[in-house]
Amino acid sequence: MVAPLRLGVAGLGTVGIGVVQIVQRHADLIAARAGRAVVITAVSARDRSRNRDADLSGYAWEADPVALAQRDDIDVFVELMGGSEGPARDATEAAIAAGKDVVTANKALLAHHGHALALASEAAGRVIRFEAAVAGGIPVIKALTEGLAGNALRRVMGVMNGTCNYILTRMQSAGLPYDQVFEEARQLGYLEADPNLDVGGIDAGHKLALLAAIAFGTKVSFDAVELEGIGAISIDDIRRAADMGFRIKLLGVAQMTGRGLEQRMTPCLVPEGHPLGQLQGGTNMVVLEGDAVGQIVLRGPGAGSGPTASAVLADVIDIARGIRTPTFGVPAAALVVPTPARTSTPAPWYLRMTLLDKPGALAKIATALGEAGISIDRMRQYGHQGVQAPVLIVTHKATRDDVDTAMARFAATGVLVGEPVAIRIEEV
Amino acid sequence: MVAPLRLGVAGLGTVGIGVVQIVQRHADLIAARAGRAVVITAVSARDRSRNRDADLSGYAWEADPVALAQRDDIDVFVELMGGSEGPARDATEAAIAAGKDVVTANKALLAHHGHALALASEAAGRVIRFEAAVAGGIPVIKALTEGLAGNALRRVMGVMNGTCNYILTRMQSAGLPYDQVFEEARQLGYLEADPNLDVGGIDAGHKLALLAAIAFGTKVSFDAVELEGIGAISIDDIRRAADMGFRIKLLGVAQMTGRGLEQRMTPCLVPEGHPLGQLQGGTNMVVLEGDAVGQIVLRGPGAGSGPTASAVLADVIDIARGIRTPTFGVPAAALVVPTPARTSTPAPWYLRMTLLDKPGALAKIATALGEAGISIDRMRQYGHQGVQAPVLIVTHKATRDDVDTAMARFAATGVLVGEPVAIRIEEV
Repeated sequence: MVAPLRLGVAGLGTVGIGVVQIVQRHADLIAARAGRAVVITAVSARDRSRNRDADLSGYAWEADPVALAQRDDIDVFVELMGGSEGPARDATEAAIAAGKDVVTANKALLAHHGHALALASEAAGRVIRFEAAVAGGIPVIKALTEGLAGNALRRVMGVMNGTCNYILTRMQSAGLPYDQVFEEARQLGYLEADPNLDVGGIDAGHKLALLAAIAFGTKVSFDAVELEGIGAISIDDIRRAADMGFRIKLLGVAQMTGRGLEQRMTPCLVPEGHPLGQLQGGTNMVVLEGDAVGQIVLRGPGAGSGPTASAVLADVIDIARGIRTPTFGVPAAALVVPTPARTSTPAPWYLRMTLLDKPGALAKIATALGEAGISIDRMRQYGHQGVQAPVLIVTHKATRDDVDTAMARFAATGVLVGEPVAIRIEEV
Repeated sequence: MVAPLRLGVAGLGTVGIGVVQIVQRHADLIAARAGRAVVITAVSARDRSRNRDADLSGYAWEADPVALAQRDDIDVFVELMGGSEGPARDATEAAIAAGKDVVTANKALLAHHGHALALASEAAGRVIRFEAAVAGGIPVIKALTEGLAGNALRRVMGVMNGTCNYILTRMQSAGLPYDQVFEEARQLGYLEADPNLDVGGIDAGHKLALLAAIAFGTKVSFDAVELEGIGAISIDDIRRAADMGFRIKLLGVAQMTGRGLEQRMTPCLVPEGHPLGQLQGGTNMVVLEGDAVGQIVLRGPGAGSGPTASAVLADVIDIARGIRTPTFGVPAAALVVPTPARTSTPAPWYLRMTLLDKPGALAKIATALGEAGISIDRMRQYGHQGVQAPVLIVTHKATRDDVDTAMARFAATGVLVGEPVAIRIEEV
C-alpha cells in the first residue's frame, strides 16, 4: 500500500471548504481511484475563529501559509488564497523551495509568475497544477494538455468570466441597460471587490494567457493580451446584433499567426447558432481547435465551491496517481518567448453608427469603407429618428488596421452623429 | 534522455493512417510534450498492396496482427482493426500476454471483453486505454476518469452515434421520412456494413456501457443496456415534439439508482434549448454530471480519421509520459458487478396516438392515464383528419412501468387507431 498523499490547504473560503468537504465525503472513492488515500494534514486561513461549514478539528492549524507550505507532514500545498502577490506568492514559492507539489486555483498568480514558478518547481522535480484556475469545473487544462496532445493547436477560444456573460445575456433577455444589470450583478454578489477584474476582462484575460501558453508552447504573456471590457456594450448593440443573427460575448481568442501570437479578450459577435452564441448566464465555455481533432467545445460551471473544488481534486488525484504532466504541457524551460502580434487575422466586422439625415450621408460612409479596402456584406438602415438615421453594417473580412483606417475616414466625412462602434465578428 | 516509445499499429484504415500521419507530421511536437520520441516500428493490415495515404516504408510489415503484437521491438500495441472477436481480440490478448500496453479504438471489443482484458493487463502491470472508442475526438474518457475523479457521478448521458443524429436532424430540417434519409446516409457512406450497429443503437450502446463502468465503478455490462433504435421514429413525432419545444435524440443515459444501474440507449425527447437539443448533424455530445461539479458538456467530432487518431495519440502520449490510469478508473479487480435495473427513474413522457373521432374518446384516454397514476401536463389535439384525431400528451413524471400500464389500458379502450407512441422526456 502506498502512503497517503497529505495535503496542506491554504485558504478556507468557499473553494477551500469545498475541497475539505470532498476529501471528507469521498475518502473511499478517492482512495479507490487514486490507489492511495488522500488526506488533509494542515490548513491555514486568515481568521481561525470564523464559523465554517466543515469540521476542521482533525487538521493542524497554521496562521501563516508560508509555515503551512513548509511543514514536513504535507506533500502537496493547495493554494486557494488568491492574488498575484503577497501571501499566495510567498507561500507558493516557499512550498516549491520545500520540495512540495502545488495545486492552485490562482489565475492571477500564474498569469504573472507562472513561468518562473513552473521553472522552479520543475527544477525541484515537482509540479504545479492549476485546473481550477481556468473555467472552474471544466477539465479544460487536462483536455488541452493531455487530451489534445497529438494536435497542433490552431485556436483557443473561451467565454471564461461568468459575470460578464450573465450581464450580457441578462441585458438581452430583460432588455435592460448595462448600468442597471451591472448593479444587479453587484447586489447578487457576482462581482469581484474590484469589478474591473470581471467587466474589464482582466480575470478572463489571465485565463486566456494560461491557455495560450499551453496551446502554443509559449511563455505566459498576460501583458500582451489585448484587453477590452464590456462596459461600452449598449443594449442597442445587443439588440441589433441579434437582428442580424449574432450574440455579443466577452470572448477570449488566442491563435498563432505568421506575425506572432494573437491574444485578445474583447467583446465579439458570434453566430447565435453556435454553442458560444447559445451560452446563457454564468456558464463558461472553452473551444479548442486542433489540426487533427477539429473543434472541441467544453461547457460547464466556471465558478462556485463545488465546481472549483472538483477541479482542485482532479489535480490532487492526478498527483496521487503519479500523473506529473508539466505545468504548461512541455517543460517550462522549453517554452519560447512569443512575438506578440496585434490582431491581424481578418474577420468580418459589425459596425454601428448614427448618420445625419441628409442626402449622400450613407454614400460617404460606403465610400470611406471602400477606400479602406473593406467591402460590405450586409447593411441595414433603421427608421429615421428625427434627423438621425442609425445604420448597421456587416463587412466582409477585414483586418483591424483596415477597420481603424475606415473609422478615421468616417470621422472625416462630417456625417456621423456620435462615435461609431466596431465589434469583431469571430468566425467559429 | 528516455528511450523512444515504440508503437505497433494494427489496422491501416482511415484511423490507422490518421495515426501514422500524426506521428510523422508532429514528431517534434509529440517528443516535446511527451518528454521522449514516439515512433512507429511495425504495422499490420489485411492487404499490403493497397495504396495508402502515408509513407509506410520505414516500418516493418506483419501480415498477422498477433505476430505484430508479440514483436520485441514494440512497447505499445495500437489496435485499430475493430470487431469484438477474431483478429482484434486475438491480437489484443497476445499483446497483453507479451507485456505490451494497448491503445484501442475498439468499443465492441471492450464492451464485450473489457473487464477480462483489463484484469489481464493490470495483472501484467500494463494498461489498456481506449479514448478513441467513445465519442471520437472528444477527450471524454480522460474527462471522466481523471478530470472528474473527485466526484461521485450522478448521471452520464450522450449522443454518441453521429449517423443517428445526422438522420434525426436531417429528417427534421428537410421534412423527410426516415426511410429516405436512411438511404441518403447509406449513399453518403455514413452507415456501418451492418446498419443496425448504428440505427439499432448497438454501437452507441457499447460506448455507453464503457462510460457507465468508469462512472460507477462497475464491470462493463453491455448486455444490460436497454437498447432501442431510431427506426420507429416518424417525421410526425419529430415535428410534433418540435411543436412542444423538444428534439428527438438517440440518447444514452446511465445512472445509479436505489434499484441498481440503469443503462439505456433509446430515443428520448430533450428540450430544444439544452445543448443536447441543439446538437446538429454527425457531431457527438457527452454530458457528465458529478455531485461536486454539476453538469459538464463536451461536444466534438465523434468519428473520422483526424479526430479518432487524435484520441489514439492522447492515449499514446499519456503512456509515453508515464500516465497509467487504470482502464476503468479503478483497478479492474475492484469493479463490482452491477445490479441491472430496468428504467425506474420517473420522467415526463411524450405520448402520441390517433383516436377515433367519436364522443368520449379523449375522456377514455384521460381516464386510462389517471388509472395508471399518470397526470397530464400538456395536451394537444390536432385538426381532425376524416374520422381520426391525432392527440399529443406530455405527462408529468411517471415510471416506465406506469406508462406501460397506461398503454395496455389504452388498447382496451377501443378508441385507438394504430399503435400509440411513448417516448421518454429526459430531464436535462
